[in-house]
Amino acid sequence: MKNRFKLLSAALMLLPMALLAQQPRAGQQPQHTPPAGTQPNIHNLDGQAYPRVDAQGRTYWRFYAPDAQNVEISFRGPMKKQADGWWTYQSEGPEVIGLHYYQMIIDGVSAADPNGKTYYGMSKWVSAIEIPEASGAEYYKVQDVPHGEVRERQYWSEITQSWRRCFVYTPAEYDQNPKKRYPVLYLQHGGGEDETGWVRQGNMNNIMDNLIAEGKAVPMLVVMDRGYATDARPGATAAQGMRSGVFPEIVVKEIIPMIDKNYRTKADQKNRAMAGLSMGGMHTFQTVLSNVDTFDYMGGFSGGAGAVDQIATMNNGIFADAAAFNKEMKLVFLGIGAEENPERVRLFAEGLTAAGIKNVVYYESPLTAHEWLTWRRCLNQFAPLLFQ
Amino acid sequence: MKNRFKLLSAALMLLPMALLAQQPRAGQQPQHTPPAGTQPNIHNLDGQAYPRVDAQGRTYWRFYAPDAQNVEISFRGPMKKQADGWWTYQSEGPEVIGLHYYQMIIDGVSAADPNGKTYYGMSKWVSAIEIPEASGAEYYKVQDVPHGEVRERQYWSEITQSWRRCFVYTPAEYDQNPKKRYPVLYLQHGGGEDETGWVRQGNMNNIMDNLIAEGKAVPMLVVMDRGYATDARPGATAAQGMRSGVFPEIVVKEIIPMIDKNYRTKADQKNRAMAGLSMGGMHTFQTVLSNVDTFDYMGGFSGGAGAVDQIATMNNGIFADAAAFNKEMKLVFLGIGAEENPERVRLFAEGLTAAGIKNVVYYESPLTAHEWLTWRRCLNQFAPLLFQ
Repeated sequence: MKNRFKLLSAALMLLPMALLAQQPRAGQQPQHTPPAGTQPNIHNLDGQAYPRVDAQGRTYWRFYAPDAQNVEISFRGPMKKQADGWWTYQSEGPEVIGLHYYQMIIDGVSAADPNGKTYYGMSKWVSAIEIPEASGAEYYKVQDVPHGEVRERQYWSEITQSWRRCFVYTPAEYDQNPKKRYPVLYLQHGGGEDETGWVRQGNMNNIMDNLIAEGKAVPMLVVMDRGYATDARPGATAAQGMRSGVFPEIVVKEIIPMIDKNYRTKADQKNRAMAGLSMGGMHTFQTVLSNVDTFDYMGGFSGGAGAVDQIATMNNGIFADAAAFNKEMKLVFLGIGAEENPERVRLFAEGLTAAGIKNVVYYESPLTAHEWLTWRRCLNQFAPLLFQ
Repeated sequence: MKNRFKLLSAALMLLPMALLAQQPRAGQQPQHTPPAGTQPNIHNLDGQAYPRVDAQGRTYWRFYAPDAQNVEISFRGPMKKQADGWWTYQSEGPEVIGLHYYQMIIDGVSAADPNGKTYYGMSKWVSAIEIPEASGAEYYKVQDVPHGEVRERQYWSEITQSWRRCFVYTPAEYDQNPKKRYPVLYLQHGGGEDETGWVRQGNMNNIMDNLIAEGKAVPMLVVMDRGYATDARPGATAAQGMRSGVFPEIVVKEIIPMIDKNYRTKADQKNRAMAGLSMGGMHTFQTVLSNVDTFDYMGGFSGGAGAVDQIATMNNGIFADAAAFNKEMKLVFLGIGAEENPERVRLFAEGLTAAGIKNVVYYESPLTAHEWLTWRRCLNQFAPLLFQ
C-alpha cells in the first residue's frame, strides 16, 4: 500500500499545475459546441459544461461513460449512448423552475454527478440542477450590500449526549454594534436534508442580507440546527419518529438557552420566531404549539399544516380557544408551492381563520414544486413580517 | 415533466418517515456480520457500515452494484463480485494512517461513494477514508473545551472582479472581549482543494480550540481563503499558473485589508502569519517572501520548500542577505510527512540554516503521507510557535 500512497502523493503534488492551467478533465469535456441559448447549470463544477439549461427551462445533458451499459438521470430517465462514448439526454419540455436534486445512475448505481457540486438532500450527498426563474430574480443572489456572516458553532447536548452543530446567521451590523441586541428566527431544514441546507441550497444569507439592506426586514439572528436527534437519557424510548421525536424539546431546553448565552439576543417571546420547510415545518408546529409562550411568530413552508377537519382537536386543541391563542401568537404563516398540490395547506389556512385565529398568512409560490425556490420565496415573504 | 416533479414532491414528503425511522437504504445495507475488530470509516454517512477499518489499518469494503460489470476503488484496485450483487475488497495490509481521498469507479465512471460524506479534493467532490492513528490522538477532535466559531464571509474582489468567499476562525473568547484585538494566521489549502478544506478535512477549529484551551497557543484569528484567482484587470495576462498567479497580490491588497476592517485584529507585521499546505505552501512562500515587512511568521506544510542549491538566488535572492531576512522574519516552519519523500524539504531546511537563516523549524510527521493527518499535525506544531 505504501508505494501506492507515494504515487498518490506525487499525483496530488501535480494537481495544482493541472488545476491552475484550467485543463479540461481528460475525456470529460465535450468536444462539441453546446446548443445556442443554453447555459451551464449553476451547480456544475467550475468549467463543467453539462448539464445545461435554456431560457425556457429545457435541460440538456451529456455524460462520458464509454464502458457503461446503461446510464440514467434520476427523476428523468435513460440517456442515449452515442458512438463516441458520450451519453445524452434532453428534457421533453421545460422543467419546473427551481432547484432539483438528482443523481446519475450508472449501471444501476445511483451516485452524485462527478461534474457537479454536492448538497445534502435525499439523506445523502447528491447533485442539483437549477431551472432559473424567468424573471431572473435577484433576491437570493449575492448583491453589493453589506453582508452578514454565517457562523458554524458546536455545542454539547445533554439530551442526546452528543456534540451537535448549528449555523448562526448574524446581520452585517452585528459586530459594529457591540451593545445592540437582536431578535432570533429559528429556521429548520426538511427531511433528508441537514443544517447546511438553508445556506447552501437556500441562499438564506443572501436573502437576509438583501432584505435588511432594503429595510424590508429588521436585522435579526437566524439559527439553523439539525432536525435529527436521539434521546439518550435513561429510560428514553427508542422511537424517534417525527411525532415522538425529541427535537422540539432540544430547541426549547438546549438550543435557545445556548443561543441566548452566546449571542446578543433579545431573549423574550416577542423577539423569537420559528419556521421550517417540510419536516422542519412539522418541527415548527410541534415546537411552537407546545410552547406558545416562547414564540410570537411561526411559519410552515410546505409543511406543518394539518387536516382542516381536525383544527379543533389537533395539538391538544390549542386552536379551540382562538382568543387565548391570539393573545400568544402574532403570526401563523403557511407557504407552499403551486406545483405541489397546495389545496390542503390553503384549506388549512382558511380553516384557521374561520376558527377565529388572527394573523394567518397564506402564501402560494407560483409555478414551483416541493423544492428550494419555493422555500427561498417563503423566507423572503416571511422574514419581513417578523419583529416589527 | 410537471407530473414527474409532483411524484418527486410526494417522494420527498415521505423522506422524513423513512429517515427518522432509520431504515437501511433498500439493498445497500449488508445482510452479514462485519469482521470482528473493525469499525465504520468515520467519513461514512451515519449508519453506513462500509468501508470499515481495523485496528491495524486494514480496510474492508462492500459495495452493492448487482448490474455493474466492473467496480474499482481509486488508488486501490478492482473489487470482487459476489453472487448476491455485493462487491468486496480488502487491503493487502495496513494502509498509511491519515485521511485518503477516494472515488468508486463503476464501469469506468469515477464518482463519490454514495454511502459517504463528500469533501472538495482532487478538484471535485470526492469521498474520504481515514486510517486512525494508533495512539488515538485527540488533538483534532471536538473536546469539552470552549469552542470558537468558523465564520463564512463574502467579499468583493476588485482584482478578480468577483465575489469571493473565505472562512474566519474566531477563538471562543472573541465575543466575550469586545475591546480585545487579536493576531491573525492566514492558512491556505492545497491544489485541488478549496477554502472548506482546513475545517472539513483538517478539523482546524478543533485543533485551535484545544491548543488555546491548553494554553499552548495564544487566541488568534485564522483566515482561510480560496487559492484560485484570475486577474480580471485590463491588460492582465491570461496565464494564471502557480508562479504567475495573482493570489499573493490578492492576499496583501484585498484579503488582509478586508480582515483588518471587519475584525478586531492587531494589524501589524508582528501579529501576522501565513502558512499553507502543498500549493498553499507555495502560495505562502510567494506571498511572504515578496512581502517580508508584512508577516513575521511563515509555514510550508508539504509545500513551499525549494531546491537547496538555489537558496542563494530563489525569490529574488531574499535569502542571500541572511541578516536582513532575519530582521524581518521570526519563524520559517517547514513540515512534511515521513511517507512522502521528505528528504528534499529536510535538505532545504538545513540549507536555510547553513545560509544563516535563524529560527528555521523542520518538522517531519511520522508515518504519514501527502494528506490531512500530516497537515493537522503541522498546524498543531506550528500554531504554538506564533505570536509569543
